[in-house]
Amino acid sequence: MQDDEQAIRQLLTTWLDASKAGDTGKVLSLMTEDAVFLVTGQAAMRGKAAFAASQAALKNAKIEATGEIQEIKLLGDWAYMWTRLSVDITPAGGAAPTKRAGNTLSILRRQADGWVIARDANMLAVVSQ
Amino acid sequence: MQDDEQAIRQLLTTWLDASKAGDTGKVLSLMTEDAVFLVTGQAAMRGKAAFAASQAALKNAKIEATGEIQEIKLLGDWAYMWTRLSVDITPAGGAAPTKRAGNTLSILRRQADGWVIARDANMLAVVSQ
Repeated sequence: MQDDEQAIRQLLTTWLDASKAGDTGKVLSLMTEDAVFLVTGQAAMRGKAAFAASQAALKNAKIEATGEIQEIKLLGDWAYMWTRLSVDITPAGGAAPTKRAGNTLSILRRQADGWVIARDANMLAVVSQ
Repeated sequence: MQDDEQAIRQLLTTWLDASKAGDTGKVLSLMTEDAVFLVTGQAAMRGKAAFAASQAALKNAKIEATGEIQEIKLLGDWAYMWTRLSVDITPAGGAAPTKRAGNTLSILRRQADGWVIARDANMLAVVSQ
């Protein structure tokens, strides 16, 4: 169980590092095919293709995120994770950066190749700087 | 498994009906002692006492909510549920009503007396009328 928790912590680190590096292929490898991303004020985003399209809009932006895990609960081949995230996005071309912070609640699934994200609830809000 | 899914659907109906009736005691009976409620732009709300305090502020408001379950996934004595919620709050004293809508992602737990909510991620946003 400690190994699973460690693997889930590593999943978050890998996700944040890949986002920072702009490595969408890596990020896509960290979710189920049918992953669903829920964000305040937007329709649900379903599946890898939709996620990839959303990342294309951020192609030249600089993304720096830090996460602080509040809770990991293992449920056999599933788990949930509550995280406090802080994300700075600096658009290409010199526009002002945006800082968002808040909680996420993720449903994780153990696949043959390791733990991945299956459902993600994102409650980040813009933080005035 | 079908009985569990039915019980979880009933939990949502009971919750929404109790909210409408202003029956905070009933709503509190539908969550774990350590329940955590996550909302965009706010700190996490932890435990029944915090939830009860938050409801006190809505004491004389009229709350009408409808929910449309998108997914229930049973994980033994745990489950997750993705719901689309729409909530109309009409404050006491004639102030204008507020409509909020969006997705929720809840972690449910089976206790001796039935299924209850353990973690809840609320991504509702104000809808202009």
